[in-house]
Amino acid sequence: MRLKYYNDPIYGFISIPTPLISALIQEPVVQRLRRIHQMGLSYYVYTGATHSRFEHALGAMYLMSKTLDCLQQKGTLITDHEREAAQIAILLHDLGHGPFSHALEGIFSEGFSHEEISLSMMEKLNAQYEGKLETAIEMFKAVYHRPFFNQLIASQLDMDRLDYLKRDSFYSGVTEGNINSERIIAMLCVHNDVLMVEEKGIYSIEKFLLARRLMYWSVYLHKTSFAAEEVLKRIFKRAKYLISNSLEVELSPALHYFLSGAYSKDQVEQALNHFSFLDDIDVMSMIKSGVTHADFVFSTLCTSILDRKLPKIRVTQSPPSTKKIEEKMELFSQSKMFQSSDADYFIFDGQIENRGYNRQQSPIHVLDNKGAVRELSALTDDSNLAALTKPVTKYYFCYPK
Amino acid sequence: MRLKYYNDPIYGFISIPTPLISALIQEPVVQRLRRIHQMGLSYYVYTGATHSRFEHALGAMYLMSKTLDCLQQKGTLITDHEREAAQIAILLHDLGHGPFSHALEGIFSEGFSHEEISLSMMEKLNAQYEGKLETAIEMFKAVYHRPFFNQLIASQLDMDRLDYLKRDSFYSGVTEGNINSERIIAMLCVHNDVLMVEEKGIYSIEKFLLARRLMYWSVYLHKTSFAAEEVLKRIFKRAKYLISNSLEVELSPALHYFLSGAYSKDQVEQALNHFSFLDDIDVMSMIKSGVTHADFVFSTLCTSILDRKLPKIRVTQSPPSTKKIEEKMELFSQSKMFQSSDADYFIFDGQIENRGYNRQQSPIHVLDNKGAVRELSALTDDSNLAALTKPVTKYYFCYPK
Amino acid sequence: MRLKYYNDPIYGFISIPTPLISALIQEPVVQRLRRIHQMGLSYYVYTGATHSRFEHALGAMYLMSKTLDCLQQKGTLITDHEREAAQIAILLHDLGHGPFSHALEGIFSEGFSHEEISLSMMEKLNAQYEGKLETAIEMFKAVYHRPFFNQLIASQLDMDRLDYLKRDSFYSGVTEGNINSERIIAMLCVHNDVLMVEEKGIYSIEKFLLARRLMYWSVYLHKTSFAAEEVLKRIFKRAKYLISNSLEVELSPALHYFLSGAYSKDQVEQALNHFSFLDDIDVMSMIKSGVTHADFVFSTLCTSILDRKLPKIRVTQSPPSTKKIEEKMELFSQSKMFQSSDADYFIFDGQIENRGYNRQQSPIHVLDNKGAVRELSALTDDSNLAALTKPVTKYYFCYPK
Amino acid sequence: MRLKYYNDPIYGFISIPTPLISALIQEPVVQRLRRIHQMGLSYYVYTGATHSRFEHALGAMYLMSKTLDCLQQKGTLITDHEREAAQIAILLHDLGHGPFSHALEGIFSEGFSHEEISLSMMEKLNAQYEGKLETAIEMFKAVYHRPFFNQLIASQLDMDRLDYLKRDSFYSGVTEGNINSERIIAMLCVHNDVLMVEEKGIYSIEKFLLARRLMYWSVYLHKTSFAAEEVLKRIFKRAKYLISNSLEVELSPALHYFLSGAYSKDQVEQALNHFSFLDDIDVMSMIKSGVTHADFVFSTLCTSILDRKLPKIRVTQSPPSTKKIEEKMELFSQSKMFQSSDADYFIFDGQIENRGYNRQQSPIHVLDNKGAVRELSALTDDSNLAALTKPVTKYYFCYPK
Repeated sequence: MRLKYYNDPIYGFISIPTPLISALIQEPVVQRLRRIHQMGLSYYVYTGATHSRFEHALGAMYLMSKTLDCLQQKGTLITDHEREAAQIAILLHDLGHGPFSHALEGIFSEGFSHEEISLSMMEKLNAQYEGKLETAIEMFKAVYHRPFFNQLIASQLDMDRLDYLKRDSFYSGVTEGNINSERIIAMLCVHNDVLMVEEKGIYSIEKFLLARRLMYWSVYLHKTSFAAEEVLKRIFKRAKYLISNSLEVELSPALHYFLSGAYSKDQVEQALNHFSFLDDIDVMSMIKSGVTHADFVFSTLCTSILDRKLPKIRVTQSPPSTKKIEEKMELFSQSKMFQSSDADYFIFDGQIENRGYNRQQSPIHVLDNKGAVRELSALTDDSNLAALTKPVTKYYFCYPK
Repeated sequence: MRLKYYNDPIYGFISIPTPLISALIQEPVVQRLRRIHQMGLSYYVYTGATHSRFEHALGAMYLMSKTLDCLQQKGTLITDHEREAAQIAILLHDLGHGPFSHALEGIFSEGFSHEEISLSMMEKLNAQYEGKLETAIEMFKAVYHRPFFNQLIASQLDMDRLDYLKRDSFYSGVTEGNINSERIIAMLCVHNDVLMVEEKGIYSIEKFLLARRLMYWSVYLHKTSFAAEEVLKRIFKRAKYLISNSLEVELSPALHYFLSGAYSKDQVEQALNHFSFLDDIDVMSMIKSGVTHADFVFSTLCTSILDRKLPKIRVTQSPPSTKKIEEKMELFSQSKMFQSSDADYFIFDGQIENRGYNRQQSPIHVLDNKGAVRELSALTDDSNLAALTKPVTKYYFCYPK
Repeated sequence: MRLKYYNDPIYGFISIPTPLISALIQEPVVQRLRRIHQMGLSYYVYTGATHSRFEHALGAMYLMSKTLDCLQQKGTLITDHEREAAQIAILLHDLGHGPFSHALEGIFSEGFSHEEISLSMMEKLNAQYEGKLETAIEMFKAVYHRPFFNQLIASQLDMDRLDYLKRDSFYSGVTEGNINSERIIAMLCVHNDVLMVEEKGIYSIEKFLLARRLMYWSVYLHKTSFAAEEVLKRIFKRAKYLISNSLEVELSPALHYFLSGAYSKDQVEQALNHFSFLDDIDVMSMIKSGVTHADFVFSTLCTSILDRKLPKIRVTQSPPSTKKIEEKMELFSQSKMFQSSDADYFIFDGQIENRGYNRQQSPIHVLDNKGAVRELSALTDDSNLAALTKPVTKYYFCYPK
Repeated sequence: MRLKYYNDPIYGFISIPTPLISALIQEPVVQRLRRIHQMGLSYYVYTGATHSRFEHALGAMYLMSKTLDCLQQKGTLITDHEREAAQIAILLHDLGHGPFSHALEGIFSEGFSHEEISLSMMEKLNAQYEGKLETAIEMFKAVYHRPFFNQLIASQLDMDRLDYLKRDSFYSGVTEGNINSERIIAMLCVHNDVLMVEEKGIYSIEKFLLARRLMYWSVYLHKTSFAAEEVLKRIFKRAKYLISNSLEVELSPALHYFLSGAYSKDQVEQALNHFSFLDDIDVMSMIKSGVTHADFVFSTLCTSILDRKLPKIRVTQSPPSTKKIEEKMELFSQSKMFQSSDADYFIFDGQIENRGYNRQQSPIHVLDNKGAVRELSALTDDSNLAALTKPVTKYYFCYPK
């Protein structure tokens, strides 16, 4: 048997384990992930962060294979069929992501989460491949009888997080976020078919949670890329407004479908079809042509992204004062080029929340040295872990430079 | 004074040395480089190679700064003005690159090399910045009175190569191509205002030439991405054909300008203007809409790129036999969907040449331990260096799978 | 001028800036640092952590040079003489470290800190080099009129820490401790000749403090290497005891000098002379020959280190119970081979303390955006930073396996 | 089952696959490898190259496990017993290395190769572990019925080379030598129980051979560490001479045994016992005490190593002229401190040979796309590979500075 491989700047070499998986990777809906940036507009701040969701999907699949090896070595039985299914599920787990999805979630897929779209796409592939994805889908839906498989796909310690944190740290150059995925994997175990962490692994998990928190505030919620994504949201809002007022906007067919209101929850098949053509190209193309659009609000927003002329953003521990907001509004209203009613396209505020670890909602279970199952924070009286469990709220305020 | 910085996955941190350079980086023509992949379609083979020309430009500027530090330490006087000029010249040296330029050079810019376009763009910026780029332009044009500055911008050992080889190796995961730029820089010196290598550096240079050759055959001329770029060339050829036959092709204004024949050498200003809007988005956008085009040749080629359904490619030491070519032609002519006259869109062959080091055309000068200037290969009777000076020719043959 | 270079696995290439520094590096007292492990016995746990203090000294000197470049770019004037002096001071700052010094501090140098020994050695070199180290010594002693130089040598954000945290993380493979030294350096500035952090750098500093804390608990205070170092302390204690009882122990002359009580504070010259011959070889040599020593306590302790047969160690949030200790003592007293009075060589407990950041004792100063100087934690109400300021105490308990 | 792990700066995490292997790693003869530098005195040139043979042994075992995974995926059946045996064989393959063995081979082990000593040590362990190492020993001795296992332990493409080239490149900072072990492993296959390379892997193998050649000339045969090792040889020669003349030299018992001529081929057991106590500490300890020895030749040589005051070395394409040698001899004879008869301790010349790839003696077999077995160079007419097959000879000449 000939094996296929992918070079990976992080793991070195990723082998494609089975012919079925090799065939799935060739599918256009998977290849489409090559045209979606994993980190949206973050490359505006971290210039190296241009990697694609495709690369992440392969990386997560690689870690799944390493994890299953490790669990097997520790005595958990895993059949070849389960192994392939788990690898398929993680490979395809992100199919439902649209372009710039952290910014635009909800715009393309009102009423659907990206997980639901992923599932629909997997079901379509399953039909095409005559049921061979059945088990993968069960694992993805968390109905497979051995829960740890779903936990490896979607939980606090899933392969998704273990890959994207490491990968995003690597490409952004934020070295402190560089988690040791292999060490964390080595600390995992399965107890009664549930995923656990061995007691000796609790410090590794704490490091992981700290690194994740750090990546959130330094990278994912970096104020400049946050501002860029807020502008992007407003570009879509304005495009919708223009279309609904019968003003033409140059859009790809797929993007037009979603922005013109043609999309309806009843026509899942049609919507999915359009969705599977959507990628970063459609969005950037709209922005490029938008720069010369007659509508001044639209063209200004598009230029702001294209030429990276982003608004000023302040992130603070308390909300901006009414006075400050009014000052900026006053200044804006003096501009001859915009109408006052357009102010909220350019001046806006809000809050950002992030919590390192929510022990109630998604607890991490530890198998202690005596074989008992305990929640992570019960095993350490570490003040840093305590700090991680508190939600942190910050306030942002954007206005023109 | 506040300094600006960029995180770089390779060098860690790149500081922006002067306010003028900071302003230049903000220019739309520089920001445009964020939308051009450094390695064209190579990310189809090396999934991590999605980095942009923008990143490379900053990297080359960083290495320039390190090199000037080193030369100064060795006693070469460099004024602050020269330093800034050299950094500007290398920052802007690639402005003239269009999208997928290795594949498409000549299509957008018939009669112009990308270096000439870079120069025109620099002159435009010079006007805008009231002559502050004068020295940078002199260095770039090789008319500045100290030749080593031009050699740091465009020669066998320029900052361009020192950055791109390292960067491309890093992102492609081809670790053996990972040159030690810092060691090479440390071996450079200036003698009578000409760039030289110290004698003790000849093994470092040999390693560099070997690594470069390796990158050429493994990465830049990798058969799969080579095939993809050949398909891309044919997409443009077909688009031109369709337009000249009055068939509509969905194109951005800039792309339309170049493909419709509107472009003329006399209207440099207008051409430059369009050129400065061209990037990967225009090309990928054309391909995405081309997939559903009525012309079957065009749509087939576009699908081939979009869904990565690339032709078969064989690379051999001798040209394909006439018999083999005729076989494939015969097979193609049996297809009902294409006309025989379209065969050369799908079946084609040619040769690829590469030479590691051409000692006549672009010699590397070594300052030997006694202070005499000698050509690199005169100082070593190494059989590997000899092997590098011979041109290598290979033959490719592409046909449908 | 010819420059000298060192390859460094972390920074790539370190150039030796001046002939004086080059000469100092050749001095036997500096070369001696090649024979002292930077991390003591940590390589018993982190197998890659075999790097030397010599490597660290060069690394810290490299970071000093980067920092001075950066400060100069921001407008702080630094003369060539000051630059060389600062680099000499950091190069030599660790000369006073003995072998396994974290474990053995106080045994070789009762009444002296390693900083004081470093200073004495620098003064000796200063005499030899006819006063050329005068300014370096002033900086080291914190009497130079521009305080930031001393802060770059010995403070919360000195080059020592910036190098060793990065280096130790690299070699131990604990990736999360990998601080971004270059980013931190880029955030430093000088205000009224005092070292400060720019306000925009506070998150970088927080990351640094978190990474440092993580390195402490994961690496520097790792329980297994902690146990090994405690055993090492007891080997010395026993060697002293044997000598004072006129029993022979095979020791190098230098080690004999310090362990036999010949050492006296009055004879600094003589003591320094012996000290400058002490390195890891002396200690390991004693242990190798100790394995076959007639004294069973001594040979058992030496074998424990040589063959890595380390005692059991438990680290807990509260002290071990009297009952547990008595149990182990009881067990030990049943052994026929040892006398009860020797129990504390094999069974011992104690506490380990670490505080991430002590804002009173060694505050980090931030220059805020309005030009005012503030203490770091006053600028952030981050719960993680708060957690870092609290001292953490843990308790260890060691006993035979 | 609990697994054990080692952090590795290169591979991240190495898991210990079975309890037997875990027990073997705890053996003093394996732990001894922690006290032997993998690259001898190379850390005198490449300051980071302080890694131990222990680390390399674990690394090679890790690559063995990756390779067996890969071969199994390609359809080669490997039993659990064979897997464990292969891992044991590679883990223990270097037990027979003495301290600074590239320099000192033959001095400690006249009449024995280090492979023979490794074998004897494995047999001793086998007796201790009641025959559990039987298969490992068969593989090591190349008598196991499936030859590819031995080839993975000792051949052109064995795990030893795949680890040490990567590891030595990493620690020395010579980035171009950084082979992609994982890609090479992915190209291996087994055909009729013989190890082969898949045809598509020939460029990877060529890269590997080039990188290896580069490591030889840049690192392993670097002139400065070469000179240091030549001095080391002469220290041993002089020590033997002194002992044979009844002059005392301070030596560890093990070193004394080998240098005093007590060693005899008949007493293998006794010799092995002494050998298993020999490590870098013994040698460095002799050197440290040698610095103050009464014999001026011996003390001068020892100081030369201890304080890194190495002789001048010239490496050239042709032997040094008689005239040059006589000049240096003349100069030496004028020195009052040495006798003329001692000249060859300080002035010496010789030749160094290295061949990249010997296709006759140890051919690399390629399984071509049609299933036929061919020798590597028959498949490529690449001039670089041709260059690699030629032996390269250089000449060195050492003399006092």
